Amino acid sequence: MKIHGQAYRTIWLAQDGWRVSVIDQTRLPFRFETVTLSSCEAAAEAIRSMVVRGSPLIGATAAYGTALAMRVDASDAALDGALGLLGATRPTAVNLHWALDRMRAALASLAPGERVEAAYAEAAAICDEDVALCRAIGEHGLEVIRAVAAERPAGKALNILTHCNAGWLATVDWGTALAPIYLAHDAGIPVHVWVDETRPRNQGAALTAYELGAHGVPHTVIADNAGGHLMQQGQIDMVIVGTDRTTATGDVANKIGTYLKALAAHDNGVPFYVALPSPTIDWSLSDGLRDIPIEERSAREVTHLTGVSEDGEVRAFRVVAPGSNAANPAFDVTPARLVTGLITERGVAAASAEGLARLFPERGSGAAG
Amino acid sequence: MKIHGQAYRTIWLAQDGWRVSVIDQTRLPFRFETVTLSSCEAAAEAIRSMVVRGSPLIGATAAYGTALAMRVDASDAALDGALGLLGATRPTAVNLHWALDRMRAALASLAPGERVEAAYAEAAAICDEDVALCRAIGEHGLEVIRAVAAERPAGKALNILTHCNAGWLATVDWGTALAPIYLAHDAGIPVHVWVDETRPRNQGAALTAYELGAHGVPHTVIADNAGGHLMQQGQIDMVIVGTDRTTATGDVANKIGTYLKALAAHDNGVPFYVALPSPTIDWSLSDGLRDIPIEERSAREVTHLTGVSEDGEVRAFRVVAPGSNAANPAFDVTPARLVTGLITERGVAAASAEGLARLFPERGSGAAG
Repeated sequence: MKIHGQAYRTIWLAQDGWRVSVIDQTRLPFRFETVTLSSCEAAAEAIRSMVVRGSPLIGATAAYGTALAMRVDASDAALDGALGLLGATRPTAVNLHWALDRMRAALASLAPGERVEAAYAEAAAICDEDVALCRAIGEHGLEVIRAVAAERPAGKALNILTHCNAGWLATVDWGTALAPIYLAHDAGIPVHVWVDETRPRNQGAALTAYELGAHGVPHTVIADNAGGHLMQQGQIDMVIVGTDRTTATGDVANKIGTYLKALAAHDNGVPFYVALPSPTIDWSLSDGLRDIPIEERSAREVTHLTGVSEDGEVRAFRVVAPGSNAANPAFDVTPARLVTGLITERGVAAASAEGLARLFPERGSGAAG
Repeated sequence: MKIHGQAYRTIWLAQDGWRVSVIDQTRLPFRFETVTLSSCEAAAEAIRSMVVRGSPLIGATAAYGTALAMRVDASDAALDGALGLLGATRPTAVNLHWALDRMRAALASLAPGERVEAAYAEAAAICDEDVALCRAIGEHGLEVIRAVAAERPAGKALNILTHCNAGWLATVDWGTALAPIYLAHDAGIPVHVWVDETRPRNQGAALTAYELGAHGVPHTVIADNAGGHLMQQGQIDMVIVGTDRTTATGDVANKIGTYLKALAAHDNGVPFYVALPSPTIDWSLSDGLRDIPIEERSAREVTHLTGVSEDGEVRAFRVVAPGSNAANPAFDVTPARLVTGLITERGVAAASAEGLARLFPERGSGAAG
């Protein structure tokens, strides 16, 4: 997507053809800076320190990190070492291990002399495939947006609420929940996005607002508390969010607070869509509330925030009364009954075992006990 | 209530018997400081600059401000001037004008020589009556808490969620939504309070957490997004919130985000109570969503926060991506169908025209067309 008129991916080969450039996401939204990685160790550190974030982008960075390692030493021992180093950076990121397994499969059987070129090719393929996946989600979501827009008065902007950041900054390009919005905007459909701040980590206020603004999509940030009221007032036409994990029955685990917006959408007859690449469907799960463990993160994410003070310095601030503790469940589960549809790379599925099985017949059978 | 073992009200006569002390609420929760007001102008400035806040406390401060004015000049002209000055500070605060009307009624017919003593007596009466009102709400709410606790395993803490600050800092003592919680805690019932941060102004994280902590009530701050998940997990036994305005039919306008928690409580079978002094019931209204205008406040409350940075300085800082705008509706309306009961100074009413009419027969007839 664009940043002030210039097209970017979140990861790209530098002009020298071997180093790897990324956007430093720890500096967003207050600074736009890029970092160029010239070693496997630098790639691992970029993942560990969250210079790059979002499961697809982490996977892509790890793939290029493997390629950077092969340039120095393409032996079996070096390959093992690189995969181990990169795999230890963010143990729970799904795409990280998937990407590293894929790099191993592509390289292990090759002679060391062939590994550098093959590694760069495989890393590029991982990136291109992620872009294609997100773009396909975007195109199916665009049809949903067109259908909702068709029921609105012509010329009136379509108001879409989103929560957290499921945008291109979390992927290689396009994003998941935001992909349909970018495509609609680029197609000339007047869209306006209500951006949930998304406490405690503020991915909405920081990243979603940043990337929408940089691409030129009209948007307004709101406190997470405001969405229900805006729906009551008819100011939200549809909701599109991402998901971290989806059951075979269509329950959706996404950033904490998603469930509250789904309840409000249901109460006000507002369509509630979830955009997801099919690899995030866990076909072994049938009851999200029972089966999906919810990560409890550091209380400091609630008690402290990062922002820029009047003197221009980016600082951490405590906002909770001194001495008071905080709890920080990071995700919640939205039951399938509250989800209007699941936007996947193959099309839109009903949020049910039947709906998903119809779209993914090779996986759907036998799921959901 | 207590601050680290010492009993306080939010407003009290200084030891000299004529000056008026208040807690500087602009400094909370990071500093506990008191301010002593020695003139009507100082009282007006304390209201205007939000050193005091909360409708009942604003009314009490204005009453004492009138008394301070009478000490200097008890003429009719001075009385008019004081009431005018104080009335212009926060035009929309309901109790402010009620308190000033009451001061005028108490003083206007007296000879100037009698006005100082009468003004102090009336201001003290306004304070004492507010304390009694809140205490009565607390006692009726305590019975509700006892009933919910009776269905829980003995010895297990009762988990109560609250939103925003409807505590003693907004009143003269006890508060409204927190009054039952203080009484339960003081009665030895083990309670634990989940405190919604309450973005954008963070009254929960700052004020509710502060006052619960100072009084010694166990509590945990959470992001506003977390309450639905905690209810799904059975970690919330009941909800008690305050209200700014209630219709004759039991619809409740309260801090933005209240509606989302009411939806989640309804979806999970969690009792949802609203505590209110009956003067906040607007008997002329029958449809909260249609009839209650929602104040849109400054976008800066969303884009900026106040906190204390590592160097100990209290600062404002921006948390939203530069260039992105924000919207800030301050309240939302929770329909009566989502409210389990209204806790008033006369007892608990069903959230309906019939329920309120039964408790307030002198007002209820003819309401709600």
